[in-house]
Amino acid sequence: MGEREGDNGGGQAILIRPIGIIHSCFKEKFGIPRQPGIAPSATARLELLSPFGRPELLRGLEQFSHIWVHFLFHQTLVEGWKASVRPPSLGGRVKVGVLASRSPHRPNHLGLSAVRLEKIDCRPHRCILELSGIDFLDGTPVIDIKPYIPYSDSIPTASAGYGVGKEALSEVRFSREAEAFCREYRERTGRNLLQLIGELIRHDPRPASQRSRPEQQFGMRLWELNIRWRVEQDGAVVEGCEEVADWVAAGSGLDEA
Amino acid sequence: MGEREGDNGGGQAILIRPIGIIHSCFKEKFGIPRQPGIAPSATARLELLSPFGRPELLRGLEQFSHIWVHFLFHQTLVEGWKASVRPPSLGGRVKVGVLASRSPHRPNHLGLSAVRLEKIDCRPHRCILELSGIDFLDGTPVIDIKPYIPYSDSIPTASAGYGVGKEALSEVRFSREAEAFCREYRERTGRNLLQLIGELIRHDPRPASQRSRPEQQFGMRLWELNIRWRVEQDGAVVEGCEEVADWVAAGSGLDEA
Repeated sequence: MGEREGDNGGGQAILIRPIGIIHSCFKEKFGIPRQPGIAPSATARLELLSPFGRPELLRGLEQFSHIWVHFLFHQTLVEGWKASVRPPSLGGRVKVGVLASRSPHRPNHLGLSAVRLEKIDCRPHRCILELSGIDFLDGTPVIDIKPYIPYSDSIPTASAGYGVGKEALSEVRFSREAEAFCREYRERTGRNLLQLIGELIRHDPRPASQRSRPEQQFGMRLWELNIRWRVEQDGAVVEGCEEVADWVAAGSGLDEA
Repeated sequence: MGEREGDNGGGQAILIRPIGIIHSCFKEKFGIPRQPGIAPSATARLELLSPFGRPELLRGLEQFSHIWVHFLFHQTLVEGWKASVRPPSLGGRVKVGVLASRSPHRPNHLGLSAVRLEKIDCRPHRCILELSGIDFLDGTPVIDIKPYIPYSDSIPTASAGYGVGKEALSEVRFSREAEAFCREYRERTGRNLLQLIGELIRHDPRPASQRSRPEQQFGMRLWELNIRWRVEQDGAVVEGCEEVADWVAAGSGLDEA
């Protein structure tokens, strides 16, 4: 915090206030897609806060398939920023400058994601945007939304120094018990858990430091569920899914086998 | 300002401080491209401010062709935000919600542009990024930069409700005097004024409210110059370019014929 609020270095600080808040299935950082768009089944509801939750502020937005969401990496606010980071897409081995990364440990902690706008649901005194292809932690404060304008925002020929988005694991298999749970859960809630888990794990959410231990089981929280999985050769196996009544008591989400 | 700093509507306000400042040819709003990328000859220097102007924060960024610049629409901060706006690409006739637009009159006044990264020039205690295809007012405070990652940022198939970027004027001609001035100016400064003026005027920077008066001459400031031009049928004529020693005394930049 000191880095942000100390000497203002020639630029005047200004106050930013949230215009909305995210409700998503991601209750902790582990398992969140590293970029938006790579898990189309990951959905969220963006609730606009007063005085911004009025239909007139959104008029015309329904004509756009995608929007930009500007948000705050609120969980790293207290951790401050770092000059250098080790992007997971470089296997955690290479240091790059924080401004050459999309790391949350950045000055001002500003996040930016292009996501699909599925639906706008406005009722008196409250507007909800339904989004998909998201990478937001539950409770993320939103500070702006903008229509995605392909003419100026889409630069398919841009060259990028290091890649993201490659699917790292060739296959995601489910144990008989895990698959049965997912099917039953879908009937009960409408959530396509099989597909979502597949999309998330296929991109290998393991921290680089944990990849050398193939025997390790990981736990990933989605909604009120703990998803247990393990990597085998170049594929992954989902071993179990359980409802966790009190996640805080249940631990960190990284379960040792 | 009251709208931004009053009741915080359920979300906690946070302090954002500039990490850099823009030096550009655009000394006033009139004439600035309405989106980045439409005037490739429009360049700017982004000067990182202390303590952010250190090479280690930028390490690896040179591998990216484009970057996102997050900035503040500093000139509209005091004007506050509006619920509805009239986008110039809709001819100023149609009202849309501010969150369905890229208007500067938005909550939190956050701007976002994808621009080309031409060069990084770091010396002890100061780093400058040379950018092109910009749409920044001179003096714009920058609050974040990020690498442009085509995998997640480029969505060429996204559908947009209303268009931008169409070239509105078929041709930009120069008077003999204006052309001679531009050639002499290029020899003296290295700045390709003919090309830059052509790119800017071709997109028709006139406010919608002024388009019905074909006789009107417009003045557009670039660096220390005033560029006078007029629309004729579907083309434009640049009638003169003059150095303006003291722009403030010289008026608003909108000269009546």
